[in-house]
Amino acid sequence: MGRVPAQKIPVAILGATGMVGQRFIELLQDHPWFELVGLAASDRHNGRRYDEVARWRFPNSEMPAAVAAMPVFPSRPEALPPVKIVFSALPNEVAGEIEQSFARAGAAVFSNAKSHRMAADVPLLIPEVNADHLAVIAQQRRERGWSGFIVTNANCASTPVVMAFKPLQEAFGLRKAFVTTLQSISGAGYPGLPSYDILDNAIPYIGGEEEKVESETLKMLGSWQEGQGFQNAPLVVSAHCNRVPTREGHLECASIELGHEVSPEEIIEAWESYRPESQTLGLPSAPEKVLLYRQEPDRPQTLRDRDAGNGMTVTLGRLRRCPLLSYKFVMLGHNTIRGAAGGSVLNAELCVSKGLI
Amino acid sequence: MGRVPAQKIPVAILGATGMVGQRFIELLQDHPWFELVGLAASDRHNGRRYDEVARWRFPNSEMPAAVAAMPVFPSRPEALPPVKIVFSALPNEVAGEIEQSFARAGAAVFSNAKSHRMAADVPLLIPEVNADHLAVIAQQRRERGWSGFIVTNANCASTPVVMAFKPLQEAFGLRKAFVTTLQSISGAGYPGLPSYDILDNAIPYIGGEEEKVESETLKMLGSWQEGQGFQNAPLVVSAHCNRVPTREGHLECASIELGHEVSPEEIIEAWESYRPESQTLGLPSAPEKVLLYRQEPDRPQTLRDRDAGNGMTVTLGRLRRCPLLSYKFVMLGHNTIRGAAGGSVLNAELCVSKGLI
Amino acid sequence: MGRVPAQKIPVAILGATGMVGQRFIELLQDHPWFELVGLAASDRHNGRRYDEVARWRFPNSEMPAAVAAMPVFPSRPEALPPVKIVFSALPNEVAGEIEQSFARAGAAVFSNAKSHRMAADVPLLIPEVNADHLAVIAQQRRERGWSGFIVTNANCASTPVVMAFKPLQEAFGLRKAFVTTLQSISGAGYPGLPSYDILDNAIPYIGGEEEKVESETLKMLGSWQEGQGFQNAPLVVSAHCNRVPTREGHLECASIELGHEVSPEEIIEAWESYRPESQTLGLPSAPEKVLLYRQEPDRPQTLRDRDAGNGMTVTLGRLRRCPLLSYKFVMLGHNTIRGAAGGSVLNAELCVSKGLI
Amino acid sequence: MGRVPAQKIPVAILGATGMVGQRFIELLQDHPWFELVGLAASDRHNGRRYDEVARWRFPNSEMPAAVAAMPVFPSRPEALPPVKIVFSALPNEVAGEIEQSFARAGAAVFSNAKSHRMAADVPLLIPEVNADHLAVIAQQRRERGWSGFIVTNANCASTPVVMAFKPLQEAFGLRKAFVTTLQSISGAGYPGLPSYDILDNAIPYIGGEEEKVESETLKMLGSWQEGQGFQNAPLVVSAHCNRVPTREGHLECASIELGHEVSPEEIIEAWESYRPESQTLGLPSAPEKVLLYRQEPDRPQTLRDRDAGNGMTVTLGRLRRCPLLSYKFVMLGHNTIRGAAGGSVLNAELCVSKGLI
Repeated sequence: MGRVPAQKIPVAILGATGMVGQRFIELLQDHPWFELVGLAASDRHNGRRYDEVARWRFPNSEMPAAVAAMPVFPSRPEALPPVKIVFSALPNEVAGEIEQSFARAGAAVFSNAKSHRMAADVPLLIPEVNADHLAVIAQQRRERGWSGFIVTNANCASTPVVMAFKPLQEAFGLRKAFVTTLQSISGAGYPGLPSYDILDNAIPYIGGEEEKVESETLKMLGSWQEGQGFQNAPLVVSAHCNRVPTREGHLECASIELGHEVSPEEIIEAWESYRPESQTLGLPSAPEKVLLYRQEPDRPQTLRDRDAGNGMTVTLGRLRRCPLLSYKFVMLGHNTIRGAAGGSVLNAELCVSKGLI
Repeated sequence: MGRVPAQKIPVAILGATGMVGQRFIELLQDHPWFELVGLAASDRHNGRRYDEVARWRFPNSEMPAAVAAMPVFPSRPEALPPVKIVFSALPNEVAGEIEQSFARAGAAVFSNAKSHRMAADVPLLIPEVNADHLAVIAQQRRERGWSGFIVTNANCASTPVVMAFKPLQEAFGLRKAFVTTLQSISGAGYPGLPSYDILDNAIPYIGGEEEKVESETLKMLGSWQEGQGFQNAPLVVSAHCNRVPTREGHLECASIELGHEVSPEEIIEAWESYRPESQTLGLPSAPEKVLLYRQEPDRPQTLRDRDAGNGMTVTLGRLRRCPLLSYKFVMLGHNTIRGAAGGSVLNAELCVSKGLI
Repeated sequence: MGRVPAQKIPVAILGATGMVGQRFIELLQDHPWFELVGLAASDRHNGRRYDEVARWRFPNSEMPAAVAAMPVFPSRPEALPPVKIVFSALPNEVAGEIEQSFARAGAAVFSNAKSHRMAADVPLLIPEVNADHLAVIAQQRRERGWSGFIVTNANCASTPVVMAFKPLQEAFGLRKAFVTTLQSISGAGYPGLPSYDILDNAIPYIGGEEEKVESETLKMLGSWQEGQGFQNAPLVVSAHCNRVPTREGHLECASIELGHEVSPEEIIEAWESYRPESQTLGLPSAPEKVLLYRQEPDRPQTLRDRDAGNGMTVTLGRLRRCPLLSYKFVMLGHNTIRGAAGGSVLNAELCVSKGLI
Repeated sequence: MGRVPAQKIPVAILGATGMVGQRFIELLQDHPWFELVGLAASDRHNGRRYDEVARWRFPNSEMPAAVAAMPVFPSRPEALPPVKIVFSALPNEVAGEIEQSFARAGAAVFSNAKSHRMAADVPLLIPEVNADHLAVIAQQRRERGWSGFIVTNANCASTPVVMAFKPLQEAFGLRKAFVTTLQSISGAGYPGLPSYDILDNAIPYIGGEEEKVESETLKMLGSWQEGQGFQNAPLVVSAHCNRVPTREGHLECASIELGHEVSPEEIIEAWESYRPESQTLGLPSAPEKVLLYRQEPDRPQTLRDRDAGNGMTVTLGRLRRCPLLSYKFVMLGHNTIRGAAGGSVLNAELCVSKGLI
């Protein structure tokens, strides 16, 4: 077990009215370590009640009553109640500077935006994959003169890829990967895609997404060492990203080239037995199983598997030989939970457990 | 121009009540060369009117009045009116023997079933791709002692692949290909997928489909020579096949390795200028453009591009460098027209034009 | 509180492999009063494991491991382990005789089929609406010479109607009602509607459904008295039934004529305060609120409200004046839970609580 | 036959970039009487090419090349090329004043907005229903001092109602009607409903829609007489409006009370034989059949019947007795063609034919 906070830590959400912001609210409700004390959104909402400025977007839950009555503040450190942790669901266009201002003011910022993901002193973190990258934070604070820090989490399409690849990379080496995604509409936020554009349609384009999958994966599977910084993993990824008319969950097809010949059983064993250190820390949002392999020939499916492990488990299936590379398989992750807000919350839990907060 | 029949050629449809059977009916209505005189289906319907045994499945057309009143016959050559051409929409389980009985009885059989696709003396034909494979028919007739013959067309997912690859293979050589499909529900026939299984879902499995894409492509892009038979193209294909909730049209993402370095402009030029001999024959079902490249970054899309060229054109787009192979791109073909009934009708037109019928 | 069983009561499911059968399995898992000991289905499955003969249809749950290993028996009382309660998800065509054979053999049969719904000695039961109709069971047993009995539950479209109408009928009288339904695909069972028929479509026809809504409602809102039998409620209902592409939940629009002038507040108060005797009995499947009125102008919605009260609550909204009758409003109920298996389980709980089992 | 213009009449479109604006473009392409010479939209687009400021929204057509190159003007009469006819697809918020400025400047304005629909001197016109209401235009011009005039067309949900009711009103009298709609997403324009709100959902609320159906119907089915103005039809309508996940087409269920007892055959005959004067004028956009009755028990369906008569025919079906009023039936109309742009174009054709332009 890692460190457990003696009392609840006050936290705030930036970009609290959007879809990822609302996932944060949902996940922080009744959180055993964190207490949501501040909501920030567009300046024009300053001081109004949350339920006056936001409608609840999730169909299967309600806006928590306590949150409905909370005031909404501008996205400035001095405007919000004092917090130790800030979860950012800000849009990429504005996230960069605002997140920095909070880190400068002493908060640990956990960001979903892409602004700082590829920065040389910012970890792009998945606790089960690269917890050791947290070592860069000391450098980040030192060089930037911050008392707080910024940790980012990956794009929703990159996340399942990295999680499925990590045990294989560790056990067998991983050299090449093709990834084709079938991504849900919620990945575009709210209002996101007009229904007229996507009902009875599949769209083979999501702006910037392929580049993210191809680059973020390498950073996360790579190494960080004092003095050397981040080194990309010696892996080449080629991504095709598509939007399909499903509500939640990104289904992804992969072909991979391993470092040496292994049997399918060895691969499945590597996934099923994967138990990184983060799984031993008692983090509240960690799923029972990080990776779940399904034996049925037609799984994972978007609708059936997206909620595995409360949306925090990545489901795998259909492992078979690839005529071109070593193996083919299919993976599925919940895009607004594991691939967004849930990933950030788990990152924050890891930092608390490690004593960084 | 090729040969044009002096008078309409009598044709029949096997498996006339299913979804592909009905596409044949639709496409043969008012066909300038063919006259539909016989409909065959399950024995139990023998002698009943077509509209008593079949409901029309297509939402945007009606059962033609003349067809509604036609009697339905058993699937035996002697039971049907005399025809020169038989279009087969039979299910794979029964197609093999029945199609042979018609060929033996003298008919030219154009089949959608997979039964004979990979046979050593049966062409797997796309007029724009491998019209020269028709040479095998002489051998087929000779060795089997048939007066008729069998020509097959490809699986609906293989068809756009082969059509998009052919000009590249010719111009630059083609060595490797990854193909991931997003296939429409109509590809499963009728009743096909229960709505409860596919609404808000994506399913990464279609039984036997990946194997077809990986093998049929090689045969079609390969060669046939007297005495040597079929030689597969020196190409390796890896396929991932998925079902998504769209009505018609298969969207497919490809990464390809070409024989040598070329520019994107050369590839697009190879596609746009592709004009195989079949396009010079005046075949009634041939589209104006075999391949259409769209410049927009988010095309082709299933809904928007499936009806290009009355469903006979394959639409291409998003050509860009691939980090692993030479290029990535997207293609889209109409699965029940180009990828099924329309492909068969075009095959029959080619055989007429070439004097084989 | 009513009677609580001293030990778990053994129960069986007829028609255990279909969609409603699987809802029974789901709802009986970990049930505090009932223990599932027998599964029956088509004779041809006799003796095989449940997971060999059935695939699990619900996307958000798994086949319970204990059930997967259970053998499947023929639908005959002597073939099954001894049970006191039988839940029937049999299709209408066969339900009649089989259900009778179990009642004759001593079981309390809770049926979803329409076979006995309108019989003069069979209750059509919703615990919150017409628990007093259970009095007919004494007559049923006496006249039929059965040691067991049959209780039916209403059609999935009738159920929310009756539940919404009951408090209004009691408080104000109810004379006329228009009901137009927007019903989900799961209402047609599995495989139900082919996806090709319903994707991007609305179908204004469900065989026999309108007649059920128009007649079942009157029986359930009517009375039963010894010697006089069932008297229909003095109400006329006109129903329009439609299928729309939603997964679960039936949305229904109603216009009603009340017995006298009342204010909207009085109606909402009648719904919100409705607490029938069954709510005082501690029935395990009873929802906290039988009826829930939403104040938002655009609620209830199929996706957002179907799971209210674990699918056992009927959600109401949009109460407003009707230019023709007294009021208009909207209601929503979960069709495979409250409108099918969940309704039957609640009926069984009521019978146990009342000492009938 | 009515008057046919000697040469093409120059026309313009206001609100040319939205969904209804694009339907106008589509319908005016190759129109035999009208020539599109002006496109107006938001001031900020002034002078830019249409294809620079608008993306084409319809999946089954392309932006006409000639239109793509046209400049976009501000919505002021003096800014546009001189035109005799203006088609307005302006949003309700701005339509009122802008449309008036064009009528004042001499144009015949055909509007889809609700701004002037209920005005005492503006016809709410469907050529097949109330062509005689055009008589009010003389008054409108006189009192307002305009050389042009404004004609409006009905809300997309009201249109099929009025067209189905008119022959019944004429033949039998019509007193009461319940109408429940299942409306497509395109009725909300573009971007309209976010896909996250409507996929797997039905929403029982469309702001202001029920009021429109209840009031517009009465005006259109009512009379206009010099000196007396508009008199509403002696009819009461109660409407329930719902949004469902279909792309195009509004399905509507009605129960109606006729003036006296008639047989179903008489009603169907009244629909099928309905041939108003407008059908004798040779209007280019008039469908062959105004009303089409389908005998199948499950028609009309949204997907199957929306394109009847190129989207200008209203399809009827399922006529049956109503337990409360005289009859129930189902109707379907294409919302963006007959219920919007197509209706306006037909109105303009009528005015030309009648010599008003």
